Amino acid sequence: MKTRVFVTLKPSVFDPQGKTIVDALRSMGYGAVRDVRQGKYFELDVDASSADEARSVAAEVADKLLANPVIESYRVEVDGK
Amino acid sequence: MKTRVFVTLKPSVFDPQGKTIVDALRSMGYGAVRDVRQGKYFELDVDASSADEARSVAAEVADKLLANPVIESYRVEVDGK
Repeated sequence: MKTRVFVTLKPSVFDPQGKTIVDALRSMGYGAVRDVRQGKYFELDVDASSADEARSVAAEVADKLLANPVIESYRVEVDGK
Repeated sequence: MKTRVFVTLKPSVFDPQGKTIVDALRSMGYGAVRDVRQGKYFELDVDASSADEARSVAAEVADKLLANPVIESYRVEVDGK
């Protein structure tokens, strides 16, 4: 089952990569982009019999390996749900 | 306007990061995760008067800066659309 995990820095954590992108975009003439936050995106193919099972495996994996819960938060999506 | 850009490696491009994650998960007992592809995720705050305008700015920015069109493809979402 196709599962997507989005990992983003918590709002209180400074994102220097995002800041660098905003500066680069401004110098390229894209002043309309006021802010950028960079995160990570994972597509997992989970062997599960239901969407709920896939979601729970993905959340566990995100907690233990994909995200650092001290500074990052994550969101799980199963097949667009 | 909140805009999300997902950048993923094209299916034909080998993803060693994803492969490493699958191997790590297997050794942690998560054999149910058969495949992982890692990508990048950007949240852009775009100053635009319509969702279509925000989408077009984000797509341009993804093409020119966020993604490498030779090996990566991207998808743009505006406010969940």
